[in-house]
Amino acid sequence: MSILLYFEFPSEGPFGQEAAAAYAALAADISVEDGLIWKVWTEHPETSTAGGVYLFEDAGSAARYVEKHTERLAGFGITDIVAKEFTVNEELSATTRAVLRR
Amino acid sequence: MSILLYFEFPSEGPFGQEAAAAYAALAADISVEDGLIWKVWTEHPETSTAGGVYLFEDAGSAARYVEKHTERLAGFGITDIVAKEFTVNEELSATTRAVLRR
Repeated sequence: MSILLYFEFPSEGPFGQEAAAAYAALAADISVEDGLIWKVWTEHPETSTAGGVYLFEDAGSAARYVEKHTERLAGFGITDIVAKEFTVNEELSATTRAVLRR
Repeated sequence: MSILLYFEFPSEGPFGQEAAAAYAALAADISVEDGLIWKVWTEHPETSTAGGVYLFEDAGSAARYVEKHTERLAGFGITDIVAKEFTVNEELSATTRAVLRR
């Protein structure tokens, strides 16, 4: 059963094109993360906030990623992290055109 | 520029298959919402929470939907709503296989 993972944390940037350049290698690494279906990278410079929304194939993959990414963000000096996991209602999500498979 | 919209609110259900049946018509209606690219329907019965993660084509469509959906949820008696909007980093999101177009 797929799991939606929501990450949010304080960030002073980089955002936009600068982030795309700074995190290109990280994104390539995340793209082959075990169990990842997709990730959307989120930014809100006005409130100095960034994050991501992920779809994982199963709860185990999501839980392993939360641990890994929390440690990685701590390495960037980011510790005030909100991480929330939700079950996905796949039938309703398919009706509203969400992509639920890799 | 696409916008990710995050909704979260208290819910005692229905969840899962019961929600899929109860909200089938609502999902069909949302699927043709102006500017909507996709919606993932989220549930967390353990904490009596539900919500959704949406990708919209632009900020105007997202803002109109926030107003419309907030009123709709109020009609269901749901008023304690968290709604957050983020800019999407499309380049990084494309690398991590997010679907950014309808």
